Amino acid sequence: MVTPLNQDLSLDCKGLERLMAHLIEGGVHGIFILGTTGEAPNLPYAVRSELIERSCKLAGSRVPIIVGITDTSYQDALRMAARSYECGAVAVVAAPPYYFQVGQADLLRYFKQLAMDSPLPLFLYNAPLNTRLWIDVSTVIEAAAVHNIVGLKDSGLNMGYFHTVRESVRSRPDFSLLVGPDDLLAEAVLLGAHGGMAGGSNVNPRLFVDLYEAAAVGDANRVATLHQRAIQFDNAVYRSAEDANNPLRGLKAALSIMGICGTAMTPPLRPISTTERDTIAEYLRGVESISAAYPNK
Amino acid sequence: MVTPLNQDLSLDCKGLERLMAHLIEGGVHGIFILGTTGEAPNLPYAVRSELIERSCKLAGSRVPIIVGITDTSYQDALRMAARSYECGAVAVVAAPPYYFQVGQADLLRYFKQLAMDSPLPLFLYNAPLNTRLWIDVSTVIEAAAVHNIVGLKDSGLNMGYFHTVRESVRSRPDFSLLVGPDDLLAEAVLLGAHGGMAGGSNVNPRLFVDLYEAAAVGDANRVATLHQRAIQFDNAVYRSAEDANNPLRGLKAALSIMGICGTAMTPPLRPISTTERDTIAEYLRGVESISAAYPNK
Amino acid sequence: MVTPLNQDLSLDCKGLERLMAHLIEGGVHGIFILGTTGEAPNLPYAVRSELIERSCKLAGSRVPIIVGITDTSYQDALRMAARSYECGAVAVVAAPPYYFQVGQADLLRYFKQLAMDSPLPLFLYNAPLNTRLWIDVSTVIEAAAVHNIVGLKDSGLNMGYFHTVRESVRSRPDFSLLVGPDDLLAEAVLLGAHGGMAGGSNVNPRLFVDLYEAAAVGDANRVATLHQRAIQFDNAVYRSAEDANNPLRGLKAALSIMGICGTAMTPPLRPISTTERDTIAEYLRGVESISAAYPNK
Amino acid sequence: MVTPLNQDLSLDCKGLERLMAHLIEGGVHGIFILGTTGEAPNLPYAVRSELIERSCKLAGSRVPIIVGITDTSYQDALRMAARSYECGAVAVVAAPPYYFQVGQADLLRYFKQLAMDSPLPLFLYNAPLNTRLWIDVSTVIEAAAVHNIVGLKDSGLNMGYFHTVRESVRSRPDFSLLVGPDDLLAEAVLLGAHGGMAGGSNVNPRLFVDLYEAAAVGDANRVATLHQRAIQFDNAVYRSAEDANNPLRGLKAALSIMGICGTAMTPPLRPISTTERDTIAEYLRGVESISAAYPNK
Repeated sequence: MVTPLNQDLSLDCKGLERLMAHLIEGGVHGIFILGTTGEAPNLPYAVRSELIERSCKLAGSRVPIIVGITDTSYQDALRMAARSYECGAVAVVAAPPYYFQVGQADLLRYFKQLAMDSPLPLFLYNAPLNTRLWIDVSTVIEAAAVHNIVGLKDSGLNMGYFHTVRESVRSRPDFSLLVGPDDLLAEAVLLGAHGGMAGGSNVNPRLFVDLYEAAAVGDANRVATLHQRAIQFDNAVYRSAEDANNPLRGLKAALSIMGICGTAMTPPLRPISTTERDTIAEYLRGVESISAAYPNK
Repeated sequence: MVTPLNQDLSLDCKGLERLMAHLIEGGVHGIFILGTTGEAPNLPYAVRSELIERSCKLAGSRVPIIVGITDTSYQDALRMAARSYECGAVAVVAAPPYYFQVGQADLLRYFKQLAMDSPLPLFLYNAPLNTRLWIDVSTVIEAAAVHNIVGLKDSGLNMGYFHTVRESVRSRPDFSLLVGPDDLLAEAVLLGAHGGMAGGSNVNPRLFVDLYEAAAVGDANRVATLHQRAIQFDNAVYRSAEDANNPLRGLKAALSIMGICGTAMTPPLRPISTTERDTIAEYLRGVESISAAYPNK
Repeated sequence: MVTPLNQDLSLDCKGLERLMAHLIEGGVHGIFILGTTGEAPNLPYAVRSELIERSCKLAGSRVPIIVGITDTSYQDALRMAARSYECGAVAVVAAPPYYFQVGQADLLRYFKQLAMDSPLPLFLYNAPLNTRLWIDVSTVIEAAAVHNIVGLKDSGLNMGYFHTVRESVRSRPDFSLLVGPDDLLAEAVLLGAHGGMAGGSNVNPRLFVDLYEAAAVGDANRVATLHQRAIQFDNAVYRSAEDANNPLRGLKAALSIMGICGTAMTPPLRPISTTERDTIAEYLRGVESISAAYPNK
Repeated sequence: MVTPLNQDLSLDCKGLERLMAHLIEGGVHGIFILGTTGEAPNLPYAVRSELIERSCKLAGSRVPIIVGITDTSYQDALRMAARSYECGAVAVVAAPPYYFQVGQADLLRYFKQLAMDSPLPLFLYNAPLNTRLWIDVSTVIEAAAVHNIVGLKDSGLNMGYFHTVRESVRSRPDFSLLVGPDDLLAEAVLLGAHGGMAGGSNVNPRLFVDLYEAAAVGDANRVATLHQRAIQFDNAVYRSAEDANNPLRGLKAALSIMGICGTAMTPPLRPISTTERDTIAEYLRGVESISAAYPNK
């Protein structure tokens, strides 16, 4: 989930309400807050803490909340895990700390300690584009043997890695494998992932829920159709923004066009310009999956 | 196809015969020689030329031969294309020249010139792991408009790139999209690839032919089963060799265990040791897809 | 400067006193706290804030204090800049935010805003090994035109980049160029740098002060001798620790052997083992520059 | 040395004569042909062979010729080494084969075999920008113990690596350390390199010879002045061409402006445009070191 922000970078509480309602109506099976798409590393702890509390309250018992606690500061990661537990979240997610590079042995030691200290079950998060550090297959295998480590979110973009992990943890069927980017959801679920966290579902939750469900039952034809729609959607929302490195800009532009929240972003991410916003609006009008889902926008 | 070599690095003609027979019996729809798996850049031109001639003769009209002509020397790439044409190959494949880095405009100019000068249709080959140079989506789109450029082999390992290319050339249905690594064949074909060139089919052609065919008709359950078998196969054949960077070593070891050809490799690739060979033999015995296909080995 | 920590990761105030005395006696011309060597991104803000206050107090008017404020959270970077100003530091240093990748235009916008909002002069910090993001030469040129941006610390390890920057800002002689790693100090100062921030001076400040001074007056023979000693020193202190990626481990081990502070490090950085400590002690005994400087240790 | 070519990519023999005369008059201590700057990997063997023969004949006993034999094909590398020996060259230079990635153990094995099979002494060539493969310090140390391996040319751009290598082979004083890029020549020689192969000396040999000589005798002030001139020169010749990735384009443009040889380049390197040529001519006129050296151009 993106983090709706006011111009002064405080939490946009009204926007949060609208966004969560939109997601839950769209059929999502859970909500992951404070991930990369949520701009977590750029948010002060007060904003993170408020978001955890409000999201859990708004979700109630309708959908589970999972919280990203990735941090360079170990104590603060734990503090956010404790906060998540108090507020009723069901799990936390942590990528490798992202300033110093360490070896896999140190990384495993880190995750084991975090799992031991965390009051909530822990998902590992392979996010090498942001952390530069891969969680090696051998590290996942050893981590999967730890009681409180319950799954892996893989945003590595390399399906060969994903398939090898999948095969390696087959003996622990309760270890959840989730996939990161929108455009790999279809194939990941068809070939054994338990789900995905697709950034595009902020804008178009129904499309990605449908895609997941078609893949989960092995309906290859429907998957192919919905996957094509997802790729078109991504091309419109992510790539029409000028800076391909910041897909978040497209998401916030689309949500703003839909009246859900504003386009404010944390520095150094650049807020969308009026021209870009218009281009995206134009694109969105032409994309069937959006216009079908939101005929009145 | 791997290139069977004698200890003195000359072409192993008997091995070539056995390997081609094995592939054709295994049901492959075509044979790609002188690719990365064929050690092409490490082979003197005399060996390449002999391989083109003999492969075309041995294949006859049973399966088409496609020839890799990737080269740092433009004149020599063309010379190999001419040789392929004379011998009856149906197409050539070229990755970006792999010593100097150039921009996409220069790369496009290069491929256009090559397509114009080549007597055979040209497939582009995206092989960034070996060439460091991605063929950008925009370059593929422009290349797809050139008459003699007929497809792309993608070994980039990034399915997001593949899906975007797939979507971008949808308007040119005769532009073939082929995928490189074994472990991405299933999902690529399920989601729109026209085929693949799986290195593992040197050892186990039936498995990959079956996988392709299940994916081509959208039989998701059968794909999932065969895909799992392919991953197990890859783990056995590629990863049991000590040096993960050289999957070829595992292939040649397996082919040698099967009595098809020897383990000689071009420097600096290191021939397999007796210990490694035994480990791979042990692995292969435990892999259902191999023992089923080759009950007597 | 490394950050002396207690086992519970609180600030080791006694160690800080000893370390600062050691540095000032060693002749350093200034002290840079909360940089990479200071483990800044891994420290909670309370520890950072206490370190700023105590360092400034301990330094008094003897040497200037420069404070690293690199952060993924813009508001917190500013908060630390304000704290530095209140406590009497003379400048702040900021590398690009290190989770999201942005383009150079966004990066320049970020630094300009930071310089405008900061109560203290700002040094840019090119630290691509930790942030993955180079500050391009053109960005440095534009930044150098901003009033409150007063210099660049370059830890890019590429002296070609450094020389091009040096040449590009020749017209602004008050723009300070400082170089990061110990082993490039000699050549950088010989060829136009204004100084350096050498991590090794935590252990052996006199060596690096002498090296700087020889280079600043162009005494090539003395530079060559001291440079060789610095390389030997680095090989001993940094490379004898098992994990070459974490030079900090060697520094803290050496400081602990010298009785200055302990070896506690922030996760995921691994504290030094007894065996490693012994190896480093052995090395240090054999290194002339250390044994000469600290005959009684 | 760049390779002068005719429009049809055959060797420009008149251009070669003029270029070699220019270099020898400029005072160079030796000539390195068929390196990266010589476009070696893109040249057919017939052209390489002719260049070796003619260069050796033209040089006679005035300056030694060193020949690049880097190749993906081992047999052809040896063939070019034999040719170099027959024609009277004094040494050969080989970078790691540049298509397949191998581990350091395999790389060392490769260089040892090549040294044993080569009739001429062998220099290793660390060229990771083109080969992606670093020659690790430990590999250099082991290679330096081999009789026929006589030195290292380092174009890695990382002076920290260079200094560590320098320190590691101090016990073998006859092992030559040469540095690649123009802009690192000054500091490398000041701190212990035995020489350099500066691409810019094709255009301005006197500048780089003077720079080397000032550094070799430790004249820091003169080095600083000449180094600044070299950086200005590089900025003019290399960076004024549109494509920064291909510094060769600038060199050939400058040589063409000076009437020495033409601008023809091997694909995919793009020949210089008229506009670019004019820009470079303009730059060159403003660069003191060129106009001083060539007042009539």
